[in-house]
Amino acid sequence: MSQHTVRPVPAHEPPYYTVVFTSVLTEDTEGYTETAAHLEELVREIPGFLGYEHAADPGGLGITVAYFRDEESIAVWRQNLEHRAAQRTGIKRWYERYSLHVGCVERSHSFERKR
Amino acid sequence: MSQHTVRPVPAHEPPYYTVVFTSVLTEDTEGYTETAAHLEELVREIPGFLGYEHAADPGGLGITVAYFRDEESIAVWRQNLEHRAAQRTGIKRWYERYSLHVGCVERSHSFERKR
Repeated sequence: MSQHTVRPVPAHEPPYYTVVFTSVLTEDTEGYTETAAHLEELVREIPGFLGYEHAADPGGLGITVAYFRDEESIAVWRQNLEHRAAQRTGIKRWYERYSLHVGCVERSHSFERKR
Repeated sequence: MSQHTVRPVPAHEPPYYTVVFTSVLTEDTEGYTETAAHLEELVREIPGFLGYEHAADPGGLGITVAYFRDEESIAVWRQNLEHRAAQRTGIKRWYERYSLHVGCVERSHSFERKR
């Protein structure tokens, strides 16, 4: 994808939520990429979903940020059965380590270069 | 760096803050990498600094998350003169687009595989 088609999730009007998920994978990543792509499709259907971003250093840290309007939309996503199944597989096989930080956004802004 | 030496910033006791900065660079990135590395050294000296993470897809989205204990520590970092100078250069030259989301963490957890 060209860098000029990639757009950071824009600032929304606070309050909203960021779910920061950072992880380091094991070497047993069979099925991980396909599952991650499928979950990204699913999360976009959650009412209150505002955005999704992922970046990863090869062989290193992966950072995923999901943006939601409120706690209720996060709860719907947390209870999604396919999401829960993927979490179990992640703990069994894919993740060496991970951290999850759910924050309520108090302040935000975006910048876009004028051309 | 081997994946086994990369550690996600662990969950801290809430409340604390995540500063999520996502960006897409221009092609004019002279000085960007050096400045980013220098700023990472500086932010680690801020009282209340809890952690720093960065991942980037080549030619695509970069995600940086900085973790702070409270609003006061974020304010100290925001007012740092070298940080402000870098922000100005970023707006002039480095960033095609960026977003910043400052959130107060309400819930968090970490996982580490047992060996």
